[in-house]
Amino acid sequence: MTEPGVATRQLPVGVSARVRVPASSANLGPGFDCLGIALGIYDEVIVETVDDGIVLDVEGEGSADVPRDESHLVVRALNRGLTHAGVSAPGLKLRCVNQIPHSRGLGSSAAAAVSGLAAASGLISAAGFGAGLSTDELVQLSSEFEGHPDNAAASVLGSVVVTWTETADDVNSYHAHRLSVHPDVCATVFVPDTESSTSFTRGLLPDAVPRADAVFNLSRAALAVVALTSDPRNLMAASADRLHQPYRASAMVPTSELVAELRARGHAATVSGAGPTVLVLGTAPIPADIRVLAQGLGFTTHSVAIAGGVDISAG
Amino acid sequence: MTEPGVATRQLPVGVSARVRVPASSANLGPGFDCLGIALGIYDEVIVETVDDGIVLDVEGEGSADVPRDESHLVVRALNRGLTHAGVSAPGLKLRCVNQIPHSRGLGSSAAAAVSGLAAASGLISAAGFGAGLSTDELVQLSSEFEGHPDNAAASVLGSVVVTWTETADDVNSYHAHRLSVHPDVCATVFVPDTESSTSFTRGLLPDAVPRADAVFNLSRAALAVVALTSDPRNLMAASADRLHQPYRASAMVPTSELVAELRARGHAATVSGAGPTVLVLGTAPIPADIRVLAQGLGFTTHSVAIAGGVDISAG
Repeated sequence: MTEPGVATRQLPVGVSARVRVPASSANLGPGFDCLGIALGIYDEVIVETVDDGIVLDVEGEGSADVPRDESHLVVRALNRGLTHAGVSAPGLKLRCVNQIPHSRGLGSSAAAAVSGLAAASGLISAAGFGAGLSTDELVQLSSEFEGHPDNAAASVLGSVVVTWTETADDVNSYHAHRLSVHPDVCATVFVPDTESSTSFTRGLLPDAVPRADAVFNLSRAALAVVALTSDPRNLMAASADRLHQPYRASAMVPTSELVAELRARGHAATVSGAGPTVLVLGTAPIPADIRVLAQGLGFTTHSVAIAGGVDISAG
Repeated sequence: MTEPGVATRQLPVGVSARVRVPASSANLGPGFDCLGIALGIYDEVIVETVDDGIVLDVEGEGSADVPRDESHLVVRALNRGLTHAGVSAPGLKLRCVNQIPHSRGLGSSAAAAVSGLAAASGLISAAGFGAGLSTDELVQLSSEFEGHPDNAAASVLGSVVVTWTETADDVNSYHAHRLSVHPDVCATVFVPDTESSTSFTRGLLPDAVPRADAVFNLSRAALAVVALTSDPRNLMAASADRLHQPYRASAMVPTSELVAELRARGHAATVSGAGPTVLVLGTAPIPADIRVLAQGLGFTTHSVAIAGGVDISAG
């Protein structure tokens, strides 16, 4: 389906592009549905136009489970990106190399959507069909596609993002602002073996919340921007939450225990996205005894860079 | 009542201090109970210790209504500040020169509390009894005293403040962070002749709010910090609110009409505090036709500086 007023052009065979997309952690502390951070764990997609059909090669995370046809999320997003630009492909050969764990609260679905859209942009540009998709378009289309703008915009823009949605005539317009993170801030993720379903855990959230809890999170969400950009001493207060983590705690007991243990020791821990991964933001590396504690609860500790945004290059 | 462990010393007669405290606008856009801004309208207090009793001279706003004895808010706050520091006064002579309109949502009560506490601090310091109260103490005591930390901290610290409250064993600990406001941001207030009662309008707010509205405000509160400090282009989105203004709209129809008119014309208008004053934050002066429009609705337009914090000097 082409956007109105855009003529469809077919990409030639032999055009290629390569994209690298970071993982992300959404619902950052108090910032439910509006604060996300890009993390230095990457999925990579190499795509080339071929005569016909879809050839899909998937390595790494999820390779045992994901479909190998047009229903694959990267392929669907890629086609969405081409359609948006009024472009079609004859056939596609893709190679996906995945490092982002699936169903762990690290934004693998959003990263897949962004990588497909970015791959489309790379192909359009490589074919000389124009500049491809803008970052605003990537944010909008990936958020529409996947439903979590705080993940999607973090994967597109990198760093930490504030996202907000404006709705008019039932159409959502997704916006994001990239923060310049204070150079002392560093991130650690604690990844468990167990998976979690975002749609299930989202169902645990009530439709109404106490006003006092909303105000609690409001103040901390504003403070989170301060703590992340200029005053990391406030990271503990700025990562407190009453709007999502308490409701989901019973669905992921080891995660809740680890968050509580870490916070009791002064580490600004939050559930990453809808869990079960735990994220800590701080200004010093995580000490060895915490790694041992986490391991005892079933989590592997990784220091991760706060990542830049999606990288699109010639194939 | 002296704080535990602090011996009471009496100030000598003839010690004096002068304080100047800015007005403030709380509940800044989405930042209900957590974002406040100091505005360049000032109350001034000159105080001197005398042999005995309370002599109180009040000029300007509220002078017809406020009591002239120990029940006066400035006197009560002053005594609270002295008590906190383990100091007492023989008698006090005060002169209050008030410019901050009362019951208009411009933080006159918080300014009165801050001015009394700051006057106590000034007297303590002038008597050589130590450094007086710290800004942290002024924020804590004025917030305890008056109940609106986003007003009180703005009057203490100046500029824009993010405030948050930590509660342990039923004791509230009030915290505030002062933002460095982008130099292009300027403030305009539209002050009506009518007054409003904060306690009445607060009663209009429900105890529970839709989660979607909480998320709406969360994202805008985070964005408000961005817009005010680094990217004023986002002031419109960053001043949108669903948690307080809609519930109070029917209690102040001209205010709601003015906010709606201003926002429809692209001005980032919000209700100031609990109203009925309207605040606009922008990067350009308010045009003349808006002033005429506001006048038609019963509001007087004032361009006001974003103020510094409380100023304490020798009497």
